Amino acid sequence: MSHPHPELSAPPALAPDGMRIVALGGLGEIGRNMTVFEFGGRLLIVDCGVLFPEEEQPGIDLILPDFEYIRDRLDDVEAVVLTHGHEDHIGGVPFLLKERADIPLVGSTLTLALIEAKLTEHRIRPVTVRVTENERHRFGPFECEFLAVNHSIPDALAVAIRTPAGLVLHTGDFKMDQLPLDGRLTDLGAFARLGAEGIDLLLCDSTNAEVPGFVTSEREIGPVIDEVFRTAQERIIVACFASHIHRVQQVLDAAAANGRKVCFVGRSMVRNMGVAGELGYLRVPDGILIEQRQIEDVPPDRLVLVCTGSQGEPMSALSRMANRDHQIRITERDTVMLASSLIPGNENAVNRVINGLTRWGARVVHKGNALVHVSGHASAGELLYVLNLTRPGNFMPVHGEWRHLKANARLAELTGVPRENIVIAEDGVVVDLVGGQAKIVGAVPAGYVYVDGLSVGEITETSLKDRRILGEEGFVSVVVGVDSSSGKLVAGPEIHARGAGIADEDFDEVIERIEAVLREAAADGVSDLPQLSQLIRRTVGRWVNENYRRRPMIVPVVVEV
Amino acid sequence: MSHPHPELSAPPALAPDGMRIVALGGLGEIGRNMTVFEFGGRLLIVDCGVLFPEEEQPGIDLILPDFEYIRDRLDDVEAVVLTHGHEDHIGGVPFLLKERADIPLVGSTLTLALIEAKLTEHRIRPVTVRVTENERHRFGPFECEFLAVNHSIPDALAVAIRTPAGLVLHTGDFKMDQLPLDGRLTDLGAFARLGAEGIDLLLCDSTNAEVPGFVTSEREIGPVIDEVFRTAQERIIVACFASHIHRVQQVLDAAAANGRKVCFVGRSMVRNMGVAGELGYLRVPDGILIEQRQIEDVPPDRLVLVCTGSQGEPMSALSRMANRDHQIRITERDTVMLASSLIPGNENAVNRVINGLTRWGARVVHKGNALVHVSGHASAGELLYVLNLTRPGNFMPVHGEWRHLKANARLAELTGVPRENIVIAEDGVVVDLVGGQAKIVGAVPAGYVYVDGLSVGEITETSLKDRRILGEEGFVSVVVGVDSSSGKLVAGPEIHARGAGIADEDFDEVIERIEAVLREAAADGVSDLPQLSQLIRRTVGRWVNENYRRRPMIVPVVVEV
Repeated sequence: MSHPHPELSAPPALAPDGMRIVALGGLGEIGRNMTVFEFGGRLLIVDCGVLFPEEEQPGIDLILPDFEYIRDRLDDVEAVVLTHGHEDHIGGVPFLLKERADIPLVGSTLTLALIEAKLTEHRIRPVTVRVTENERHRFGPFECEFLAVNHSIPDALAVAIRTPAGLVLHTGDFKMDQLPLDGRLTDLGAFARLGAEGIDLLLCDSTNAEVPGFVTSEREIGPVIDEVFRTAQERIIVACFASHIHRVQQVLDAAAANGRKVCFVGRSMVRNMGVAGELGYLRVPDGILIEQRQIEDVPPDRLVLVCTGSQGEPMSALSRMANRDHQIRITERDTVMLASSLIPGNENAVNRVINGLTRWGARVVHKGNALVHVSGHASAGELLYVLNLTRPGNFMPVHGEWRHLKANARLAELTGVPRENIVIAEDGVVVDLVGGQAKIVGAVPAGYVYVDGLSVGEITETSLKDRRILGEEGFVSVVVGVDSSSGKLVAGPEIHARGAGIADEDFDEVIERIEAVLREAAADGVSDLPQLSQLIRRTVGRWVNENYRRRPMIVPVVVEV
Repeated sequence: MSHPHPELSAPPALAPDGMRIVALGGLGEIGRNMTVFEFGGRLLIVDCGVLFPEEEQPGIDLILPDFEYIRDRLDDVEAVVLTHGHEDHIGGVPFLLKERADIPLVGSTLTLALIEAKLTEHRIRPVTVRVTENERHRFGPFECEFLAVNHSIPDALAVAIRTPAGLVLHTGDFKMDQLPLDGRLTDLGAFARLGAEGIDLLLCDSTNAEVPGFVTSEREIGPVIDEVFRTAQERIIVACFASHIHRVQQVLDAAAANGRKVCFVGRSMVRNMGVAGELGYLRVPDGILIEQRQIEDVPPDRLVLVCTGSQGEPMSALSRMANRDHQIRITERDTVMLASSLIPGNENAVNRVINGLTRWGARVVHKGNALVHVSGHASAGELLYVLNLTRPGNFMPVHGEWRHLKANARLAELTGVPRENIVIAEDGVVVDLVGGQAKIVGAVPAGYVYVDGLSVGEITETSLKDRRILGEEGFVSVVVGVDSSSGKLVAGPEIHARGAGIADEDFDEVIERIEAVLREAAADGVSDLPQLSQLIRRTVGRWVNENYRRRPMIVPVVVEV
């Protein structure tokens, strides 16, 4: 089991009979999953997702994989296989297609429908290859076999990739609900068959590798939702992910059983459930759906609203209801159900929503007090089944932070995969599979690419560092006009502070100090603008620290007049 | 059960035979606990704690209760009863004593020792009244009886307050470990006795009211720590709260049993364990402790470091170890134990620490994968015992966010407290107990008072809002010099952006727009500086939004030359 790769350099050339695997995302983080497979000079990409920013990435909308590694080789890309329709697997596709529009997108019916709906909004018409479980398709040298897997979105696939370098199985995201709502099981028979054939490398979802045991069946949630519906006084508001078709199915079923109408609220919820309904992945009981404009016509005890916002997103309808900043005014007669996971990082936001709703008297049902969510990812117990059935020659945990990758690696070791055949890689680490042995051979850049407003990749770590300082401490701007020849002060200092907690009138004392410093500088013949700026920065910074014990950003502007 | 208090106004005068209760902190939040009791014109304060800031309070060090309500009445304060030595109960005392230095501090031996150690650092020598369980002390009209309670710090007390208005019991923070390490149980016998006498109002800890069942005994952690120690390869690093004396006791015991030396790392850990050891609350096995400078002399497989940082605090030794930014370089042979709770809001920070340590190969043991922490607060099962034994006339849940207060109120209702006798109050809400009935009668200001660097209360919501904008979007500063009489542009525009993700050279286009706008303004005879600033702000804001879809703070500075 190999450990951090402090000084990996660019990899050597790939052996002609070898396969190269480079994850550009998803290793060391949960999100922006993207793995590049190379054989014989050709590339196959599995997934192209986004990562949602945390508080260390203030103001950022999305984080993409860095396409730099493949940018000069876009013409070598045979296809992008999309294992399922979640944002962390398909969200980066519009940005990749902006670099080369005709890369074929390979996926199941639902996955393609979801990415096509998204691409329509970006005005992109993709080239697609529709596949289904048990099919084989060849993309250049990559012979792909698709296998059904069960996950928290229907129609998810694993992919087995055959090349002369060997047989590689990528599980995608999966779990092993043995009584799934749609009857579509993770195909352990196929896993066993591939295991018997000899899997040279298994790439396996690690998200829940730390969690012992087995994920409860989605089916178990049904009676809980039904009970909540039966006992609700008036309105019911259910928040969940816009992609969780089975969860919404159970809400529709409970609504039908309790004689309630359902209204989908929010663009992504309406869009996805429309797609899922049309394709038959969502069974909509006759006449149950109403439009948003019909809400007022339905008595509150006959109404269910289904919306997003289960992660506490501040602009979501749910957050605004919690803040009484929405036309739906929460009362003691309302029941709100957060039927979803709590993605790490969103704890505070969700807690605020729960407290807000509780404050207005609503009954709030969430995964902390009722079985209204089960995970979409296999727990350790399930991962052991997969390891024992596939008996891979080499094992590479994917889709997880370090703690999850390490936990999955330990499971592999327990089932008998030799330590030296377990590869814990980070994003950008280059793994070569040659002669049946997987090995780390180098690394390529795979940093964060930030989407902020219209720009992609223009926001740098420096900008983020500035934002973090500004966000913690604010800034003090100091404007002075100096005579261009003598360097003498002719205007200002004008001082403005924002977020520093210092009132403009409190700066009188430091203004005198700046004037004195500039007089001295002029007397010493210093008129170089950067030097004057530096003097001002130091003077003001020292004064603020002495008087306030704070370190705002000091921004001197010296204008020559 | 009464609900949010949207438009409560200043309370009427208190009836002469009534008691008034106003929480200035701890209701609607977990932290800065402080409750003011009033009878006959005199005040008794229970606790005076701090709240630790979350991401909506960027750059803030601490949050205090607002003392405004009592500021004009400091001379009426008979005493401050400190129920135990946690920061959220004693952290505000230094700030309160700055307003009146001789307010008597009432507490148990350990509580007073901890606050005195803290006040020494603030160069304050307080007036103290040492009390112990089963004692009665009179402070003005308040006849106080102190009761032993079990909590995650030794020597915690509940306080029963008798006045002619009735008998009030304040539990402080507590749980009911039936096999506590120090044998000191929560005194249910006394709770029952007071219940039989007739408790008019019970104020009860709500922190874990949502959690069903019972808290596991602290004692159960011992064997787990011991097992980790027995199987550790080399160094062991234990992170926990600097106040958790029983947890540290178990670490010392496990170290002794496994032949290891222990070094306390960090100022608060060294200080508190010194105090606890001197007073006999911590039993230190002979010769087990070493100083930090002796670490190198002890073989790694004989060493235990005990430090803080279990909440992922970025400057803590533990976080720096996780980032390889500390003299202790984590390796695959190290074992790190986070033997503490995960305070809501710290999930990301703790997750980063766990991932960092895991990345360097350490074995990381934490509450997610081993029983190395139990809560200090009674769960619902225990709260029911208290409610059934005390059978209070009125019930007021304290110490919790809305969700916790509401859950505790529900427990009270289940045990038979009439709904109309349950008071859910927020900070600042005024509750009067008159003739055996508790009622909300008004509200007083009880907002957040921010400590940032040296200043207390100077940082306003406006500063924080500015920080949030700056932290998300950065700023663009635009400096122009204009002729004081004509308003014509004579210097600049000079544009600088920080954190906005826009390079200085990208502003050429908008510089032309600004020049045009200022020319027009001059032609129209506009020379008013605020008006010119407004024109610049609008021009630049619009340009940034069109080109980048972002909204940085625009800071125009117009200097007259």
